[in-house]
Amino acid sequence: MNRWDTSRIEAFSDGVFAIAITLLVLDIDVPPSAYDHLFRGFADQWPAYLAFATSFMTIGGIWMLHHAVFRRLRYANTAVMRINLVLLMTVSFLPFPTRIVAEAIESASAERAAVVIYGASVLAISIVFGLLSYAIARDPELLQPGVSAQDMRSLVRAVQPNAGFYLGFTFLAGVAPRIAAFGFLASSVAAVLRTRGDSGAPGAEPTPG
Amino acid sequence: MNRWDTSRIEAFSDGVFAIAITLLVLDIDVPPSAYDHLFRGFADQWPAYLAFATSFMTIGGIWMLHHAVFRRLRYANTAVMRINLVLLMTVSFLPFPTRIVAEAIESASAERAAVVIYGASVLAISIVFGLLSYAIARDPELLQPGVSAQDMRSLVRAVQPNAGFYLGFTFLAGVAPRIAAFGFLASSVAAVLRTRGDSGAPGAEPTPG
Amino acid sequence: MNRWDTSRIEAFSDGVFAIAITLLVLDIDVPPSAYDHLFRGFADQWPAYLAFATSFMTIGGIWMLHHAVFRRLRYANTAVMRINLVLLMTVSFLPFPTRIVAEAIESASAERAAVVIYGASVLAISIVFGLLSYAIARDPELLQPGVSAQDMRSLVRAVQPNAGFYLGFTFLAGVAPRIAAFGFLASSVAAVLRTRGDSGAPGAEPTPG
Amino acid sequence: MNRWDTSRIEAFSDGVFAIAITLLVLDIDVPPSAYDHLFRGFADQWPAYLAFATSFMTIGGIWMLHHAVFRRLRYANTAVMRINLVLLMTVSFLPFPTRIVAEAIESASAERAAVVIYGASVLAISIVFGLLSYAIARDPELLQPGVSAQDMRSLVRAVQPNAGFYLGFTFLAGVAPRIAAFGFLASSVAAVLRTRGDSGAPGAEPTPG
Repeated sequence: MNRWDTSRIEAFSDGVFAIAITLLVLDIDVPPSAYDHLFRGFADQWPAYLAFATSFMTIGGIWMLHHAVFRRLRYANTAVMRINLVLLMTVSFLPFPTRIVAEAIESASAERAAVVIYGASVLAISIVFGLLSYAIARDPELLQPGVSAQDMRSLVRAVQPNAGFYLGFTFLAGVAPRIAAFGFLASSVAAVLRTRGDSGAPGAEPTPG
Repeated sequence: MNRWDTSRIEAFSDGVFAIAITLLVLDIDVPPSAYDHLFRGFADQWPAYLAFATSFMTIGGIWMLHHAVFRRLRYANTAVMRINLVLLMTVSFLPFPTRIVAEAIESASAERAAVVIYGASVLAISIVFGLLSYAIARDPELLQPGVSAQDMRSLVRAVQPNAGFYLGFTFLAGVAPRIAAFGFLASSVAAVLRTRGDSGAPGAEPTPG
Repeated sequence: MNRWDTSRIEAFSDGVFAIAITLLVLDIDVPPSAYDHLFRGFADQWPAYLAFATSFMTIGGIWMLHHAVFRRLRYANTAVMRINLVLLMTVSFLPFPTRIVAEAIESASAERAAVVIYGASVLAISIVFGLLSYAIARDPELLQPGVSAQDMRSLVRAVQPNAGFYLGFTFLAGVAPRIAAFGFLASSVAAVLRTRGDSGAPGAEPTPG
Repeated sequence: MNRWDTSRIEAFSDGVFAIAITLLVLDIDVPPSAYDHLFRGFADQWPAYLAFATSFMTIGGIWMLHHAVFRRLRYANTAVMRINLVLLMTVSFLPFPTRIVAEAIESASAERAAVVIYGASVLAISIVFGLLSYAIARDPELLQPGVSAQDMRSLVRAVQPNAGFYLGFTFLAGVAPRIAAFGFLASSVAAVLRTRGDSGAPGAEPTPG
């Protein structure tokens, strides 16, 4: 009654991650007036490219970590299922603050608020992912044989900056939005670089599906 | 002649659910004029966030229920196939009324009509899902061994408010649109919370694909 | 050198079908001025709903037929692979003429041209699907054991109106666009209704993947 | 620690390819003023169709090549995983320069810059794909038994124009943008036509998943 097959959850989550990551490009636009000097108009969109790359790497990193976590599960319980749905909601929301950052360049006073809103959105993803790994660690029966709750916690901790880190950057955005913006990019790239592969874990050999 | 493999139907349906749920974010927008006071402009979009969350939970709940129903099928017949296609049509339509609700804040007189249209769209999903479970219950040969038509009906009924419930909220929207809007959110969250896992059902052990 | 595994082609094609069918909703919009009388503004969009339903059923029918055809293949050759890519291109193009029909209501003189363009797009899908089934019938080695080239041809012919049929409707659209528009809807629904299930065909029993 | 299962990478990559290829249609639009003479307005969008077809064939060709490469891998290492993520980023970016080309017709001076920007984007995809195949060739342990690093290199080289080729076209775009635009179309079609099937390679027989 309290057990869910993980393969469908993974497939659905992968679909949402893949779509959210690909929709990000719709947030980039060159305004019609910029077509007269298109190279300059293209270059002037740099905050949009920064936001695109940051959100791409953030979602890409979450996908890699989600993949690493779910490979170590035998099945999910109802709490995991629900928190995962909330996680997908926060991830699929990210293209909106990305667009806000991309568009805030056109009215300078908005830059500060835009990066704060963006940071709060990434912070929300981080908190929900923390809740997800906490819910998994509470029910060790969910884990594949040979995986301990400690393994799971260290896997997540090795990759993800803790929520305090994102909270700090979000406050920094209120003072120095551009520095904070590059901080979000750096931390998303760092998350991708630190994610470990499957080897050493159960089921690391190529498996169907 | 009258039998369809369920795995392709599930994969296609999951794709449509995942895309529809992720497209919802495109319905949220901060108007250019709001960038001067972006925090306020962001906060003023609360009906858009309410509509986003409601539609996300509605589609998420339908996905979970769809998953629970199709796991209990051996195969589909042509009626199920056709009704499922109509169900996907109503689900993929939902981002449109969601956008109407999100935009109706800008002209106050529209709020009432927007929530009624939204309610009618959710009502349509509910009715089509009812037809789908009715079509399944009519042909018990479709069910996995060990699953009775009664099990299927109680599964669906435990989760989904009946159409009368949504009809009531839709009428309420004509009088008190904001209360009705929160009612739709509450009932979508309730549907997610009440969905049971796979356990106890045949095929509940992790299966390939 | 000339053989392709069908499972990846099916998965990729299903992805494109599912996305194209779900993007159709983005073609529907209520203009800001209509929010003052939203029920009327909503109802005035009926050509957009007609176009949405027609395109949904057209893509849904192509998906069902594509599924039925590829189940009967052991593998694809390079010609099938290439024609399939062109088929996906014509299918993923369909949201554009759908939007043209939906928007043509706002300038009455455009209605005629809009339905002709729409018809030509559906005609193109029909012709490319015809080429695909012709390419398959030319190389009987591609078929699953027990499936004849004749079976394949009759499967496709039973469902799809031939290109001449769509050509006729496209010409009709130049004279009586509204009648032609309902004709496209009727023929897309008919295609969905006439598609046969898997049973009787090899591999009709539930298969992994 | 350094090994990743390829099936999830392929599924996620396929999702991104399928979505990016289907989003291209959103870049095509007929301006409202053109609805008075819709046939002419439709025909005037020819650069948008050219850009659509070029980007569709470019992504389609990358998908086919990506598929051919990953079939020959037993697993991926961390470098492959990261470069693949960057490849997906460049592919998912392509709808943006496609839209720039499609819109540049409206201000003639922008044509030159638009095609240069488009060319640079395709060049970036080509360079990242080159890095991906280089990373694979450096670690022959990743390959399926019976596949040599030499096989892999010749597979990629047979299909993809080298980066120098795209660099040349990008420079040509600064002088003769229309010729360069048709050059990009021709080379994307050539890449699709030259991709070999699975046969002769290990695992060429139909495999699950």
